[in-house]
Amino acid sequence: MQTTQVLRRALQVDADAEATVLGSRRRNYRQLYDRVSRLAGALRALGIDKGDRVAILALNSDRYMEYFFAVWWAGAVVVPLNTRWATPEHHYALEDSGTKALFYDQAFSASLPELASALPENAPLVCVDDGPMADGVLGHDDLIAAHQAIADAGCKDDDLAGIFYTGGTTGRSKGVMLSHRNLLFNGLNSEASIGYGRAPRYLHAAPMFHMADLLNILAVTVKAGQHSFIASFDPAETLNVMTTEKVTLTLLVPTMINIVVNHKDADTATDLNCRVIYGASPMPEAVLRASIAKFPKWEFIQAYGMTELSPLATTLAWHEHVLEGPRAVQLKSCGRAVLGCELSILGADNQPLPSGEIGQIAVRGDNVMQGYWNRPETTKEVLYDGWMLTGDAAYMDENGYVYIVDRVKDMIISGGENIYSAEVEQAVYSHPAVLECAVIGVPDDKWGERVHAIIRLRDGSAADEDEILAHCRTQIGGYKCPRSASFTDQPLPLSGAGKILKTELRKPFWEGTSRNVG
Amino acid sequence: MQTTQVLRRALQVDADAEATVLGSRRRNYRQLYDRVSRLAGALRALGIDKGDRVAILALNSDRYMEYFFAVWWAGAVVVPLNTRWATPEHHYALEDSGTKALFYDQAFSASLPELASALPENAPLVCVDDGPMADGVLGHDDLIAAHQAIADAGCKDDDLAGIFYTGGTTGRSKGVMLSHRNLLFNGLNSEASIGYGRAPRYLHAAPMFHMADLLNILAVTVKAGQHSFIASFDPAETLNVMTTEKVTLTLLVPTMINIVVNHKDADTATDLNCRVIYGASPMPEAVLRASIAKFPKWEFIQAYGMTELSPLATTLAWHEHVLEGPRAVQLKSCGRAVLGCELSILGADNQPLPSGEIGQIAVRGDNVMQGYWNRPETTKEVLYDGWMLTGDAAYMDENGYVYIVDRVKDMIISGGENIYSAEVEQAVYSHPAVLECAVIGVPDDKWGERVHAIIRLRDGSAADEDEILAHCRTQIGGYKCPRSASFTDQPLPLSGAGKILKTELRKPFWEGTSRNVG
Repeated sequence: MQTTQVLRRALQVDADAEATVLGSRRRNYRQLYDRVSRLAGALRALGIDKGDRVAILALNSDRYMEYFFAVWWAGAVVVPLNTRWATPEHHYALEDSGTKALFYDQAFSASLPELASALPENAPLVCVDDGPMADGVLGHDDLIAAHQAIADAGCKDDDLAGIFYTGGTTGRSKGVMLSHRNLLFNGLNSEASIGYGRAPRYLHAAPMFHMADLLNILAVTVKAGQHSFIASFDPAETLNVMTTEKVTLTLLVPTMINIVVNHKDADTATDLNCRVIYGASPMPEAVLRASIAKFPKWEFIQAYGMTELSPLATTLAWHEHVLEGPRAVQLKSCGRAVLGCELSILGADNQPLPSGEIGQIAVRGDNVMQGYWNRPETTKEVLYDGWMLTGDAAYMDENGYVYIVDRVKDMIISGGENIYSAEVEQAVYSHPAVLECAVIGVPDDKWGERVHAIIRLRDGSAADEDEILAHCRTQIGGYKCPRSASFTDQPLPLSGAGKILKTELRKPFWEGTSRNVG
Repeated sequence: MQTTQVLRRALQVDADAEATVLGSRRRNYRQLYDRVSRLAGALRALGIDKGDRVAILALNSDRYMEYFFAVWWAGAVVVPLNTRWATPEHHYALEDSGTKALFYDQAFSASLPELASALPENAPLVCVDDGPMADGVLGHDDLIAAHQAIADAGCKDDDLAGIFYTGGTTGRSKGVMLSHRNLLFNGLNSEASIGYGRAPRYLHAAPMFHMADLLNILAVTVKAGQHSFIASFDPAETLNVMTTEKVTLTLLVPTMINIVVNHKDADTATDLNCRVIYGASPMPEAVLRASIAKFPKWEFIQAYGMTELSPLATTLAWHEHVLEGPRAVQLKSCGRAVLGCELSILGADNQPLPSGEIGQIAVRGDNVMQGYWNRPETTKEVLYDGWMLTGDAAYMDENGYVYIVDRVKDMIISGGENIYSAEVEQAVYSHPAVLECAVIGVPDDKWGERVHAIIRLRDGSAADEDEILAHCRTQIGGYKCPRSASFTDQPLPLSGAGKILKTELRKPFWEGTSRNVG
């Protein structure tokens, strides 16, 4: 199984079908195939060998998709970087992965010198958009024009296809290693469980560095479907492309859906027959009901997963979105195991629990990652006898519906992004006035959860909320920074093992809501 | 990936759903799960260990399905035997596979002593149907009643799940080794490519020893669908169960469809919304058109594959059955590659050919067999760089549709069964009067192709058609025996390499048809 086989199938079944659309730039699969195999030739000429890592830091575009296929075609490994990170975080991921070449776009040209310093000397830097380029930088289209196509390098099955950095609970992000089989198996799982229709027309509105988007690159391409791109999420542009390209499928996080539903142009898209996959953070039920009321022809499908699962684990199908009666409770679930995965709720002894009991979600199947890059010990903590221990606490009802009660013990999900409290705490702690601190998620109407810091200052020190928040922004990506802080002069509550009891800290914020703060 | 995970998912999502129906015997998934895990306990108690082979020789039934899951649950390997073989062929497969236990039913009790002689002394013999049993034979239900459930043995991924004997071109059948991953991946492929609907209700009318049936056991069970069984194909019973159980999906070979369409009860099933997968032999276009006219609500789906591919390689979807206009030519194809497989037409150098050129169909993906049991040399001949060389000659059009021009060079497909001419020739040759012989397929209105022998007798010897045909029936299964023979006193035409030129022999029989005899 090769990820590139989906591109060959598209060429085989409909070479003339439109493959990519970005503004007025339209290419068919014959052109895409040609460009990918030439770009792979360029990578080979630039010294990229089998297994080498090639990173990308860019907004969404057709060339981002070409990057994926070309890197695989050359036998190399993709490393898509989170566009919302701060430069030191990018630097870390580039160094940690041992990346040998970097694709980037103008949105990140200011940090190019610092990024380049994480790469080997004279590492290729490829600019994927048009416009001014620094000296020594290569143009994406120039490379394609200047090189001949090469044969597919033949990487497959358990060969590494990508390293995907996720936020790390220990304060540094971890590189999730996914193989060709992981990615392709998951695409097939998604097709079997969600259903992509005969000729899907997909809009890439959510960021392309996310696994959820990559999944759809594979599942749509194998059917020679159409890919439209917008550089980054914008409600007006999302609605515009959805209607002009007659989009049949897209993926949006709940926050995006909420913005689209309430946008002044929303009425233009009510006649569209579109499947909308949502996930990555809990969907407030009110938002879901309002979305269904606004777009009665849209078929909403919930997906739950994680990068480590390539990423799909469960889906709640459209017909399972029952609004009234006893089955309406399913709306609070994330659905049931996708067909190709086994999902179980395990107790502390890693044995399956009866339905209704809260335990840890564990998943196995060919979508389970190979492990964390260079972190065998951390890998061992989460891979157990073929099972991926997700760290998510949930129970299952008697019909297999999974109800998550705590996404990850201490993880915050804000606007669809996973934020690990330990990482934020490190940033807060790096302010000299801070003695003790705990970062938790608190309810937020706009973002689902908001990052909140509870701080005990050192005796004789002083710092206010603004100062702490400003300090954090120098340390980590803006979206991970606390949005609010409160101060206490008491020691933070501790568990018997000496760990801060976040359960207790969360309680006053979540009282009166359905969230289990444990 | 474990084949048994589909049973656990069924239990997880709908334990009360009806799992199996045979006549008035109905069981839900809770009962099926209980019976399977107990039967596995019985196998363990009988000394069956991980990797041991357990064969079955029986007509279709719910207990046949229990056998599959119980053998896997116990960590052992299934060996389903072709019910149409002669006893010496069964004996060969049992010995070749090193089978340690045998499930059988009354239809084969007469040959039990000879079958037992191929097994180790005191090997367990389990009778899967009710009625009188010989001394020392164990009853299927008695075993379930007498044993406790055991935990799943945990065989998975590349562990061997089954050995499936197919006719062999060298005169003896070969055991195709399929892993847990092969079988499950193929089920997912089938779900993604064919579509099984939300709550499939499947009729097992085609023989359960075929891979095509086993595929559907997995793909229907994972959705907690219903399985109905008829012991063996019968048009009245097929129609009866289809209507009473509101069957949504079944698989029939073209010969069966032809009989059903022309049956006096056919009108009872015209209102049924059912998907009918057909394959295993070429579908005469006239039969297909008549079937569509008779059953306008049935959705016909063509599938092409082989045991070595677990078995699915291509499908022609219902919406691709275009009866008029330029796309009607697709009816002559076997469709396009299923989503999870890569399919290519290779030339003599094993390089892909341009569309329109005839070459060999090659397929790769996680459905490709591990090899032939105990035949590494034969395996090497067909597995090449991850590709399975099917031996089927075909061309592909510009939209990926595959047109088979010669199923296998010398293979005959009669009534949905693969018949290898070399094996039949051995039987003919074993008659002392035969000097030279070639066996070919010739057109037959009822069976698609008919097995025909062309014979040159020894000087001074005599034998007529009846005598040769009767002799063959003592050697090989009846369906493989020649149905006709012709005699010549000339040497059979030879190729430069000294092989009989069957191309030349076929020509007079196929003139005026669309078959490529080459």
